[in-house]
Amino acid sequence: MPHSPDNTIASVGEFALIDRLRQLVPTAGPGVTIGIGDDAAVLQFSHPVVATCDSQVEGVHFTWALCRPGDVGWRALAVNLSDVAAMGGTPRHALISLVLPRDTLLDMVEELYRGIAAAALAHAVSIVGGNVSGADGPLVVDITLLGETPRPVTRSGARPGDGVWVTGSLGKAAAGRFLLEHPEIQAPGRAVLEQAYRRPSPRVDAGRVLSALGPRAMIDTSDGTASDLLHLVDASGVGVRLDEDRLPVPDGLGPVAHAAGIDPRAWALRGGEDYELLFAAEPGFDAEAPGVARRIGVNLTRIAEILPASAGRWIHGSGVPRPLTAEGWDHFPAGGGRR
Amino acid sequence: MPHSPDNTIASVGEFALIDRLRQLVPTAGPGVTIGIGDDAAVLQFSHPVVATCDSQVEGVHFTWALCRPGDVGWRALAVNLSDVAAMGGTPRHALISLVLPRDTLLDMVEELYRGIAAAALAHAVSIVGGNVSGADGPLVVDITLLGETPRPVTRSGARPGDGVWVTGSLGKAAAGRFLLEHPEIQAPGRAVLEQAYRRPSPRVDAGRVLSALGPRAMIDTSDGTASDLLHLVDASGVGVRLDEDRLPVPDGLGPVAHAAGIDPRAWALRGGEDYELLFAAEPGFDAEAPGVARRIGVNLTRIAEILPASAGRWIHGSGVPRPLTAEGWDHFPAGGGRR
Repeated sequence: MPHSPDNTIASVGEFALIDRLRQLVPTAGPGVTIGIGDDAAVLQFSHPVVATCDSQVEGVHFTWALCRPGDVGWRALAVNLSDVAAMGGTPRHALISLVLPRDTLLDMVEELYRGIAAAALAHAVSIVGGNVSGADGPLVVDITLLGETPRPVTRSGARPGDGVWVTGSLGKAAAGRFLLEHPEIQAPGRAVLEQAYRRPSPRVDAGRVLSALGPRAMIDTSDGTASDLLHLVDASGVGVRLDEDRLPVPDGLGPVAHAAGIDPRAWALRGGEDYELLFAAEPGFDAEAPGVARRIGVNLTRIAEILPASAGRWIHGSGVPRPLTAEGWDHFPAGGGRR
Repeated sequence: MPHSPDNTIASVGEFALIDRLRQLVPTAGPGVTIGIGDDAAVLQFSHPVVATCDSQVEGVHFTWALCRPGDVGWRALAVNLSDVAAMGGTPRHALISLVLPRDTLLDMVEELYRGIAAAALAHAVSIVGGNVSGADGPLVVDITLLGETPRPVTRSGARPGDGVWVTGSLGKAAAGRFLLEHPEIQAPGRAVLEQAYRRPSPRVDAGRVLSALGPRAMIDTSDGTASDLLHLVDASGVGVRLDEDRLPVPDGLGPVAHAAGIDPRAWALRGGEDYELLFAAEPGFDAEAPGVARRIGVNLTRIAEILPASAGRWIHGSGVPRPLTAEGWDHFPAGGGRR
């Protein structure tokens, strides 16, 4: 394709743009009776449908200083994959809504779509619909993801005595974001941490395996571990004691946190965007956990214990226990002060 | 609720805003196993799922000069209802994504949500998910609507000899928009026409009844009758002859078009946003049409005939036949010149 200064979406036209974009993503697949190109898609499911939507807004969820177009596309689907994983679901089909600044370059939108395609291919998701608008404002990618599951796992089933477990490691996205903001810092683990921020790996397979084991409650860590744990605790009507020293911090995080002047546990607790699964399991799960971790190929760490509601919500660790509070992401912080 | 100058969404906080909004819309209903409040909704369907998404972007699809917040909410759901209707589907569940300017007043968002709620209640749709972001840019309402149907109707089944029919009347939304832009014009039908633009009535019941009769192909008139007819003709690989004098123009349109210096048939052909159903039916339907129209309580008008592809696409009417071209809505017009 010739690259000219006028290679913007406006120079192509809406329908031609949609035609180009649809060729970059997987559009057919099992269950797709009618895909892109009619008034609506027609889809076949074998189990109850899991449905979620989430957006990536330029200047809010990402900036071009830290993310390339393909990363934004990947993230836009990944955050939704993580929500379906947290229900124990298998992702199947996605619909993509784009709002694009009018001077957006065609190459840029195509790169963004290739990022969506990479995440879709990694999880066998077909793109079955969408729409594109040009506007005077920030870029918005809004994705609705449909999946299915015979055994949905809610946030609300945790009971006193349950252990609270987390997949993988925490704080890596916050560390990666910090490194992207500070290219001058020497850090051996830079590439891995940056990737954790730019292209998070939602725990889709883990969520499916875990759902078959019947965890009491599950949520993904998007806002921040503390905030998401409190969502689970609130929904279940219970208390909790989190052991700060058990938070699974990844290799290479320590020196980066040191350079940032931050306690690594603070990133693990409040950094957000790790897209791990946080779940409550009855005490008997302790014996099963090592085998399950081997099966899903992801570490499992017991970081907290569910208490009766009357016992409250606490963080234990060095020093005296302190209340567990939600400090995570809030798009409209009532008290000011954004992360 | 006390109304203060600081009554903006930023003063409330994201989670509190979501809590307030969810109380304004129907969230439970048949098929909703898990609704708003978990990582994703879990839904039960009896038939193949119909899925579509469409946005209303401030400054592109609407302006505050012409639409009140409740109208924007209504339209945002109505355009999706119309797409599900065009597949012959029954709408069931919606997910709502909002991008709000940071200084948005809480009252305004609530009014917008009441508009969504009114359209949802009119068609027994439950709101099962969504997300809200604050941003520096135009307001965006993006809705994904899920429905179901045992008999999806595509755009692609029209065959030579079929009649092309349209529900209701055409050009009314364009006339309503013109009247809203010209409050000084005296027009007896003003209220009805303005309402047709601000709160279009998607033909959901008609679509369901028609789908049971097995039309060959169906689409809704959103971009404009000419443009949407060409979509159907393209998808079916056929030609068409449209009879301009048969276009069903509503009562009261004539004087408004006269005031605008426009041929009423131009609005009917290219005005867009009427959200009627346009469908191809085999010749035998001519005899059934009056009975069907009575059943659905909506006029049916035969406006065109499907031809072999080799015969081309034509408009007949006064004067010599001329080629039928797509001139409708394009968000990125390659040749400049927006409607």
